[in-house]
Amino acid sequence: MHIGFLGLGNMGGPMARNLLKAGHQLTVFDLSAAAVSGLVEAGAKEATSPAAVAQADVDVIITMLPAAPHVKQVYLGEDGLLAHVSAGVLLIDSSTIDPLSAREVASAAAHNGNPMLDAPVSGGTGGAAAGTLTFMVGGSEADFQTAQPILATMGKNIVHCGGSGNGQVAKVANNLLLGISMIGAAEAMSLGVALGMEPEVLAGVINSSSGRCWSSEIYNPFPGVVETSPASRGYSGGFGTDLMLKDLGLASEAAKQVRQPVILGALAQQLYQAFSLQGHGGLDFSAIIKLYRQEDQA
Amino acid sequence: MHIGFLGLGNMGGPMARNLLKAGHQLTVFDLSAAAVSGLVEAGAKEATSPAAVAQADVDVIITMLPAAPHVKQVYLGEDGLLAHVSAGVLLIDSSTIDPLSAREVASAAAHNGNPMLDAPVSGGTGGAAAGTLTFMVGGSEADFQTAQPILATMGKNIVHCGGSGNGQVAKVANNLLLGISMIGAAEAMSLGVALGMEPEVLAGVINSSSGRCWSSEIYNPFPGVVETSPASRGYSGGFGTDLMLKDLGLASEAAKQVRQPVILGALAQQLYQAFSLQGHGGLDFSAIIKLYRQEDQA
Amino acid sequence: MHIGFLGLGNMGGPMARNLLKAGHQLTVFDLSAAAVSGLVEAGAKEATSPAAVAQADVDVIITMLPAAPHVKQVYLGEDGLLAHVSAGVLLIDSSTIDPLSAREVASAAAHNGNPMLDAPVSGGTGGAAAGTLTFMVGGSEADFQTAQPILATMGKNIVHCGGSGNGQVAKVANNLLLGISMIGAAEAMSLGVALGMEPEVLAGVINSSSGRCWSSEIYNPFPGVVETSPASRGYSGGFGTDLMLKDLGLASEAAKQVRQPVILGALAQQLYQAFSLQGHGGLDFSAIIKLYRQEDQA
Amino acid sequence: MHIGFLGLGNMGGPMARNLLKAGHQLTVFDLSAAAVSGLVEAGAKEATSPAAVAQADVDVIITMLPAAPHVKQVYLGEDGLLAHVSAGVLLIDSSTIDPLSAREVASAAAHNGNPMLDAPVSGGTGGAAAGTLTFMVGGSEADFQTAQPILATMGKNIVHCGGSGNGQVAKVANNLLLGISMIGAAEAMSLGVALGMEPEVLAGVINSSSGRCWSSEIYNPFPGVVETSPASRGYSGGFGTDLMLKDLGLASEAAKQVRQPVILGALAQQLYQAFSLQGHGGLDFSAIIKLYRQEDQA
Repeated sequence: MHIGFLGLGNMGGPMARNLLKAGHQLTVFDLSAAAVSGLVEAGAKEATSPAAVAQADVDVIITMLPAAPHVKQVYLGEDGLLAHVSAGVLLIDSSTIDPLSAREVASAAAHNGNPMLDAPVSGGTGGAAAGTLTFMVGGSEADFQTAQPILATMGKNIVHCGGSGNGQVAKVANNLLLGISMIGAAEAMSLGVALGMEPEVLAGVINSSSGRCWSSEIYNPFPGVVETSPASRGYSGGFGTDLMLKDLGLASEAAKQVRQPVILGALAQQLYQAFSLQGHGGLDFSAIIKLYRQEDQA
Repeated sequence: MHIGFLGLGNMGGPMARNLLKAGHQLTVFDLSAAAVSGLVEAGAKEATSPAAVAQADVDVIITMLPAAPHVKQVYLGEDGLLAHVSAGVLLIDSSTIDPLSAREVASAAAHNGNPMLDAPVSGGTGGAAAGTLTFMVGGSEADFQTAQPILATMGKNIVHCGGSGNGQVAKVANNLLLGISMIGAAEAMSLGVALGMEPEVLAGVINSSSGRCWSSEIYNPFPGVVETSPASRGYSGGFGTDLMLKDLGLASEAAKQVRQPVILGALAQQLYQAFSLQGHGGLDFSAIIKLYRQEDQA
Repeated sequence: MHIGFLGLGNMGGPMARNLLKAGHQLTVFDLSAAAVSGLVEAGAKEATSPAAVAQADVDVIITMLPAAPHVKQVYLGEDGLLAHVSAGVLLIDSSTIDPLSAREVASAAAHNGNPMLDAPVSGGTGGAAAGTLTFMVGGSEADFQTAQPILATMGKNIVHCGGSGNGQVAKVANNLLLGISMIGAAEAMSLGVALGMEPEVLAGVINSSSGRCWSSEIYNPFPGVVETSPASRGYSGGFGTDLMLKDLGLASEAAKQVRQPVILGALAQQLYQAFSLQGHGGLDFSAIIKLYRQEDQA
Repeated sequence: MHIGFLGLGNMGGPMARNLLKAGHQLTVFDLSAAAVSGLVEAGAKEATSPAAVAQADVDVIITMLPAAPHVKQVYLGEDGLLAHVSAGVLLIDSSTIDPLSAREVASAAAHNGNPMLDAPVSGGTGGAAAGTLTFMVGGSEADFQTAQPILATMGKNIVHCGGSGNGQVAKVANNLLLGISMIGAAEAMSLGVALGMEPEVLAGVINSSSGRCWSSEIYNPFPGVVETSPASRGYSGGFGTDLMLKDLGLASEAAKQVRQPVILGALAQQLYQAFSLQGHGGLDFSAIIKLYRQEDQA
């Protein structure tokens, strides 16, 4: 297949490489010449604008961009994709943006004669490189069936979440709960240890009981409890506090738009914000446990 | 074995019956004559005061009482257990109280020459009747080994959590995280559905992703998602909001005593309190999702 | 003076009338024909588009619009003010919008050769009719001096808050604190009364002590304490919960843009949101005290 | 008058001195010999136990103790006041404790034939030395009239708050609102400054508008805005974070006892707790603004 790919950053770059490896023909665009030349060396063809990608006789276009304004610009701008792409070309946006913006762009695409899917990912740069991302996909069943084999070359868990925008909804809702339960795990672990329990024993009890969650089991924020978690390597790597902050911002913004309360979610967002203000935005988000421990503690 | 048992309420009553069924000899005490006579019919011997239980030549005494003041009265009062029990008799308190009170009583017991364990349970009245409770046990390894077979006649999961008071610590920390993650699950499910997703699909995505927790998987608060959860039967049965409120009260009190913040935990406690004030204290705690849904919604 | 006025709603309508009463010549525009004809009867001249207002040889243009997208459309759109207004005409936006949007429009105006002020108001529809509004004004000192006498025909308290956007900043910061202290007053009054104090006595102590605030003194949320407050007339009139919600939304959005935490502010926003979801968005915002009182209480 | 005084710490010491200066005869008790000898030098007579004070033929007894357990011990203990004082002697407790404990002790005093008032103070060690404290008094009108002239030698604002315990209720409710509005002021000031306003200008707008509160006007947490506030001298002196934490702990505890939510109050308590954990418990409570500012900021 001939695929257009826009956005070759930390996530998009390795995703595009996996498409090449799977034998697809690629025409790519990015504002960074370095990012483009890396892909060209790997076998992709360069395009000098979104419009040029749209006019390159592609079957599918995939975008991986930082935020909603970039997505709107690339799809809806004068020199953008919709103004130049042929009807029928399938559009897949893997950016993480708010669901209402996703639906707005998909609606414009539909008016243009183009099927469109929102397909945000989880799994981080490691998953992008290894081709093990999870894709949460919103759009019609037929379009999902078309996209599934393409996405499967970049990820291993491809989930259809329902109609347009629902990929974004699923991601935002999941990460809302994740951001809350991580702070909950941090509070429970810190309290239990302050009251005299060994962290490993406490985690063992919780993980076999009703407090059990991904944040206590797989990604426990207390140092030393889970060997492979960021907590056991100084909170480096993993999913940065500022990325969690972005996703909680999307959640509270989407909640505001539909007049839905997210009480613990809004508080969690502010705690990560306060933590980021203290200079810790680059640490894995499980480092939020530092708010609950004295500075000289592990 | 000859076991003294004090506190024959909704939990203690069925627990005592399971001890009888296992062949133990029981001497029981409760302020309610009806509760006592039920056990006497089942084969227990009645004592007319805590002191009388202590003097009945028992090997072990188990208590199951409503709150810390009752525990202190029964163990430390003038007519209480410690004033009359023989040295060496093992004391097991299965009440849910704050860890510091548990340690205070255990320390007094030690001065009296009595080994003591704190052994709060989870599993509810259903687990008490079926003999499938979880016991979280604090105290010495040797005393735990002695108690283990006795507790095993009333529960199926007997966990040693470390030294004195740690059974209470484990329960309080687990339920703190549970109280938080349930509200988190309620917010995530409500938001996702308000944004257009099917609740079953959303729960499926979350439960295979990083938002996964006991509250989303086993006990999902959205009606209809988990057939066996209280949400699917009008929030009846289960673990009442006012019981969760009691446990979060213990958690925030214990946190205050050791000067440990529990930020989301304190907010969760207040939300359950506000919900209880609206008249819903008797509903299962997952009914907290009603704060996030319009009244005419399911 | 010849003044253009766009936006003749509940606030803009009476403000424009006060300008007419003060002897100014008015050219007005609104999407609602009824709103326009009312002003025309009072002596204003009608314009059929923002562009037509801009081309009507006005000295000053004042806008009073619902939200930032409307402001951007009216000023920056193809048929908007900046595309057609003569250089040098002073632009005054009295809409309440986020500070960054205000600065973006003012910057575009400056590039167009037009001085611009942001001048949001407080005082409600009553103040608009009576000409007693407070104007919080952002922009240069010279432009503020020019605008001052014009604004003084619509308000009695005209405050210069510093450079462009600072009028919006002042309003957003004030209302953030107001939204928080009202809930604080509701909690303190409800708690004191639940613990046995007479509400009037409690308010008296607080108002002569360090808990004193506008929300306890002038606008006490407990019924009967302040005779003239909405609480004493069933929470009708006043400043609606949904308007407070809008302003807290602007505050948390502006905070997100500058990466500043607003922890109590975000929680306050969510509590008003939950209260609105329960169907109370039209009540005065002091009705939030209902979250803290049983339904059958006054 | 002959007055017994127990508790000669930072507050009680200077209060007792003011009673001596006013010409009263004093019999004093404290566990600290140094504290006692200071008062003896100033003219007081020493007693060696609470019982000895009670038996010293006093007309009135005043207590100023750290917390409820001390109050209960001194009044209700075997060697305590009630066991030895003559009927009719007026008892005044100026300690800050929870209202329910205050009522429990007053009820025991009444059974003993002793009228009792709870009379917690505000005004700090400065007010204690200067004799300018505020007394919030709970008890009967007649007893209040008796106590008024005595309290007036130690304070200048003596407020009758209603029946027994209501002095404590008033203090707890006032400080709950104070603790909340201070954080609100910190958020509003930090946000406004981050968005580009001068702190003095912002405070000026707020203090002439609906955000106005004691925390913004008299005690503004932003450095340099109010010359006499702790913020303008490095947050030294004033009302320590750990004292605010104690009072919010009393508020949330009292709220729990009457099943009343204090949502912002509980969050405020946790934020002061987290701030204290970071090592700032000794700073004035307005230093909480540091949570909202980068470390290198003023």
